[in-house]
Amino acid sequence: MIDTYRADRHVFQPWGAQDGGARLEITDGAGCWFSDAGGTRYLDLASQLVYLNLGHRHPALIDAVHTQADRLCVVAPTFFNEVRDELAAALLDISGTGAGRVLFTNGGTEAVEHAVRMARGHTGRAKILAHYRSYHGATAAAISISGDPRRWPNEPGVPGVVHFSGPYTYRSDFDATDDATECERALRHLERTIEFEGPHTVAAVILESVVGTNGILVPPDGYLAGVRRLCDRHGIVLICDEVMSGFGRVGEWFAYQRWNVRPDLVTFAKGVTSGYVPLGGVIVAEHIVESFSATPFPGGSTYSGHPLACAVGVASVAQIAAGDLLTRARTLGATALAPGLRALQQRHPSIGDVRGAGLFWALELVTDRDTKQPLAPLLPGRGGTEAMAAVAQSLREHRVWPMIVANRIHLAPPLIVSDDEVEFALGALDHALDVADSYYRA
Amino acid sequence: MIDTYRADRHVFQPWGAQDGGARLEITDGAGCWFSDAGGTRYLDLASQLVYLNLGHRHPALIDAVHTQADRLCVVAPTFFNEVRDELAAALLDISGTGAGRVLFTNGGTEAVEHAVRMARGHTGRAKILAHYRSYHGATAAAISISGDPRRWPNEPGVPGVVHFSGPYTYRSDFDATDDATECERALRHLERTIEFEGPHTVAAVILESVVGTNGILVPPDGYLAGVRRLCDRHGIVLICDEVMSGFGRVGEWFAYQRWNVRPDLVTFAKGVTSGYVPLGGVIVAEHIVESFSATPFPGGSTYSGHPLACAVGVASVAQIAAGDLLTRARTLGATALAPGLRALQQRHPSIGDVRGAGLFWALELVTDRDTKQPLAPLLPGRGGTEAMAAVAQSLREHRVWPMIVANRIHLAPPLIVSDDEVEFALGALDHALDVADSYYRA
Repeated sequence: MIDTYRADRHVFQPWGAQDGGARLEITDGAGCWFSDAGGTRYLDLASQLVYLNLGHRHPALIDAVHTQADRLCVVAPTFFNEVRDELAAALLDISGTGAGRVLFTNGGTEAVEHAVRMARGHTGRAKILAHYRSYHGATAAAISISGDPRRWPNEPGVPGVVHFSGPYTYRSDFDATDDATECERALRHLERTIEFEGPHTVAAVILESVVGTNGILVPPDGYLAGVRRLCDRHGIVLICDEVMSGFGRVGEWFAYQRWNVRPDLVTFAKGVTSGYVPLGGVIVAEHIVESFSATPFPGGSTYSGHPLACAVGVASVAQIAAGDLLTRARTLGATALAPGLRALQQRHPSIGDVRGAGLFWALELVTDRDTKQPLAPLLPGRGGTEAMAAVAQSLREHRVWPMIVANRIHLAPPLIVSDDEVEFALGALDHALDVADSYYRA
Repeated sequence: MIDTYRADRHVFQPWGAQDGGARLEITDGAGCWFSDAGGTRYLDLASQLVYLNLGHRHPALIDAVHTQADRLCVVAPTFFNEVRDELAAALLDISGTGAGRVLFTNGGTEAVEHAVRMARGHTGRAKILAHYRSYHGATAAAISISGDPRRWPNEPGVPGVVHFSGPYTYRSDFDATDDATECERALRHLERTIEFEGPHTVAAVILESVVGTNGILVPPDGYLAGVRRLCDRHGIVLICDEVMSGFGRVGEWFAYQRWNVRPDLVTFAKGVTSGYVPLGGVIVAEHIVESFSATPFPGGSTYSGHPLACAVGVASVAQIAAGDLLTRARTLGATALAPGLRALQQRHPSIGDVRGAGLFWALELVTDRDTKQPLAPLLPGRGGTEAMAAVAQSLREHRVWPMIVANRIHLAPPLIVSDDEVEFALGALDHALDVADSYYRA
């Protein structure tokens, strides 16, 4: 019998305990599916870690790797490189920021570090305001800016970070029960936070345009525009973190485009290459570039604008455009995933909330719809998660690999997911939610 | 006429001003040479940014990219992956740390961030001691730990960092004139720094086993072992940063092996893949792993242990071993580069100091050997660098691409450099040093 679960004896496991036991060995993938060493196939509802926007083993991306590898894998940022320039131009084009430039990094956390550095250099101010419900990366500044509990063991963090609450109508921090009120109160809360912090001390507000790991929270219409207005009023830089939400995830190139808002800085990673080669970066609006026209920017990295990565980026943008995958994500989300999940909510009392956009959705599971008692703790360190483990196990038994966070099932399939695959996922969820229901008012 | 210099209109330039002008366009590379768009070839004495240890377009590394791209480019760290495990095992083997594990990152700066985090978690202490003459990366903790002036515009940095002086006999901070005295006094200085900081508050001492960008400073025999003893005495973690000095650069897998010292944590990047795919990481000794056996390690990244990168890592280690390139680097350094550079020093008064090991050397240029007045400021912001620009220009005219830092020419060719190529470089240096000599006591 093939040993599909293998213990990592040599690899230090990130974000985990080293005695965490054996892990499923993945040996192949194709489209929205991956296979373990025993040949069992799973529908990848998590796109690995929400990055595989074009799915496993996409021929055009693999071709891009081959072609660029034969041409030139790598050249230092010191030199001009054609494919790097080409990707930067493409990103400026799709981002709607017009002129400007792109700083390339190896991934999302470096993008956030450098965006924050630009905002500080541009404004001459120190403070960074960020959502409590947020994750922005693992390096020192990025983890300090993250509101996520993963920040806790890394504190005290870097100075000058202030957290505030964003909109989340289902569990409002502002006693609102509808989106319009939540939006209004959340903006007032941010306005007061800025006032009390001193507007002239605030360099930037950073937020995930759609909050990812911390709940797939699509802000109400008007919120992002309201934040933009507050930033404009006080000369504060708006940083939209699009590491998860970019490259078609919510049916737009970047989620902020859903609301026609123009950020000053956009951080990206993941979907830019579907993770085939590590890449991230910052799209920098022209007025920020100008602050560094003569003053050197104090940051960078050895592999900034790595040609192999940029070649895959160029291919990814082309493939998303060629397949009209933005429309596809919007349509499939609106006509198949959303109604399917809402139908499940009719049948399964354990579904407290269904929310999302495009192909980025969350089911929030509860043991009581009236009290909204979560099926697992919202924050770590407050008791067990056996119920969610049982739900995950059921999904895996039905050949669906989900992302489970706290009391939520996150759904973020590759953008190339088919109608049939959505149906398959909904069927597996139907079974798993029977398990969740068994804990309902139990 | 082909435009070999092109302006980056779309790419935000790291570590520079955005009006910095046009950059040479590199379109091809082979072995130790690269070509610009006009077909002019340059001998790459910098290995790009000291990472191209196996040279441009190495067939075995390109094959590794092709093979792994066809197999599976990427899989989340959540899963077991064969090639990731294979590279981790190989790194543990060559590092001489025995048991232990490897945490993979995207590059050097993330490696340093996570190593420091491990040291703090392992010891329960906060402070990190680092050399003034050092560079450890660009993200918030890594740049704060760097003693390099690139830290300045990023200050105030993260709390808990203390800088101290390391050995540098040519310009001793301890009034020593020979290596043995410099070593003894540098160790006493570190000992006193630890005493005054409070040994029980110090989590780690981090140092580049051979200081890279800040001067290619090979510590005197006994220094690293002395630091190890001080760390042992006080339960302090020793982190050796091998991002530049690893993978054969100084004729060892890792530079600390030159002195038979065993660090607790080893950070690596660059040479592990020759930069073909971004990769870095931390080699973690078993007793540090044990601190995280049940307690989760609070760090990681989306692409940790990226299969495409790890496949190139496996091929790189195999190629270095197969070509016996450690011996080659030691031999060529000792029999060709070192005597060649010392012969130049005989002829050119502007060479104040020649130092290095393996294939990692520096020429320190002065306008007066007696006063050791540097040909360009040792630290930025203290006047012009026209002389060094003229030296660099001469080298480029003679088809050699060097790394110029402050008043130094750094030499770090690919490990596959031939005897003839070393001769070619020495010939170009001979011309360039005539330029340097013209500033001598001028």
